[in-house]
Amino acid sequence: MKVYEFKGFPNPARVRIALAEKGLFDRVEFVHVDVPGGEHKRPDFLAKNPSGVVPVMELDDGTLISECSAITEYLDHAAGDPVLTGRDAKERAVIHMAQRKIEAGLLDAVAAYFHHATDGLGPNIETYQNKDWGLRQKEVALATMRRMDGMLADRDYLALDRFTVADITAMAGFAFADFVKLAIPDDCARLQAWRARVSARPSAAMAA
Amino acid sequence: MKVYEFKGFPNPARVRIALAEKGLFDRVEFVHVDVPGGEHKRPDFLAKNPSGVVPVMELDDGTLISECSAITEYLDHAAGDPVLTGRDAKERAVIHMAQRKIEAGLLDAVAAYFHHATDGLGPNIETYQNKDWGLRQKEVALATMRRMDGMLADRDYLALDRFTVADITAMAGFAFADFVKLAIPDDCARLQAWRARVSARPSAAMAA
Repeated sequence: MKVYEFKGFPNPARVRIALAEKGLFDRVEFVHVDVPGGEHKRPDFLAKNPSGVVPVMELDDGTLISECSAITEYLDHAAGDPVLTGRDAKERAVIHMAQRKIEAGLLDAVAAYFHHATDGLGPNIETYQNKDWGLRQKEVALATMRRMDGMLADRDYLALDRFTVADITAMAGFAFADFVKLAIPDDCARLQAWRARVSARPSAAMAA
Repeated sequence: MKVYEFKGFPNPARVRIALAEKGLFDRVEFVHVDVPGGEHKRPDFLAKNPSGVVPVMELDDGTLISECSAITEYLDHAAGDPVLTGRDAKERAVIHMAQRKIEAGLLDAVAAYFHHATDGLGPNIETYQNKDWGLRQKEVALATMRRMDGMLADRDYLALDRFTVADITAMAGFAFADFVKLAIPDDCARLQAWRARVSARPSAAMAA
């Protein structure tokens, strides 16, 4: 398998963490994409992912998989016992719901703030910016953090009582939030404890 | 099971189609939520889904599942053979990828156009509007339609050679596009043929 990515960026981190959690890290060839140079917006890369974002996974038969949550579905099922995405109907639904809410409300919201309300990746790549939208999404991200603190009221992880893809998406979201200097609110003690807990996992060290 | 919804709206249609495809329609009690009256933004409903959108499914044990793609995960696995979301790792990844791209690029984009660049659900509910963002998302929706036409170059359905949740999400997206008078471009003949094909399924009649 190949993974086209830019090391250290939030979405590629999601795939690196999933690979490490599933014991598949050494089975993958990482291919560097020059994102700051705009390579992900040029025809060769758009043929791999029309959405123009990293990462993309290429299976040995040439199948191209983009969207991090889809890549994680593949890795979790290809490597047996699907602990990250769920073992039965109810687990699958609860994890999928939490992952999607955290993706939309934290990771995508922080990304929108970065791309629209800051310089983002610079004028050559940020060809459309909507500052008011970006600032609004910053507020969405902060509101999501408070909701996530509530999700941890009766468990140690965000979807179930064990580590899942919902936690991976959140780890990437907070790494991006650090980068744009958006801190977890002081009154979110459970969320801060969660972050210390997941940051201590060996997979966290494989993402940076 | 209960489904909290507003009949005829795009996202509730996704769950109705999935229920019909899985033969589960008669197993569900539908509960009407007064969306035009703003019931989905009040505390009783926000306790069921903090995102403040319909539909929400409530399992018999009280578990609340929001996000249509999560509800479909549950229904598809609870009713045996998961034809809608995928039977193996590669199917799961390909379907998940297509569903997510169509959700973001068509359904959510049309919704953003509706809520931001038209009157939407009216001034009492649309408390934040960003017209420029809404108009931009209209262009995203049209570009996604052209990409979807390309996805149909060598198959009859959007993710695989059979009907999946990616097609369900697209059906809801086009119903919403009809409502806001956003037509499939004339040069997208494959997409128009796809729409006639899926509209003839018995499940399509259960959504309206």
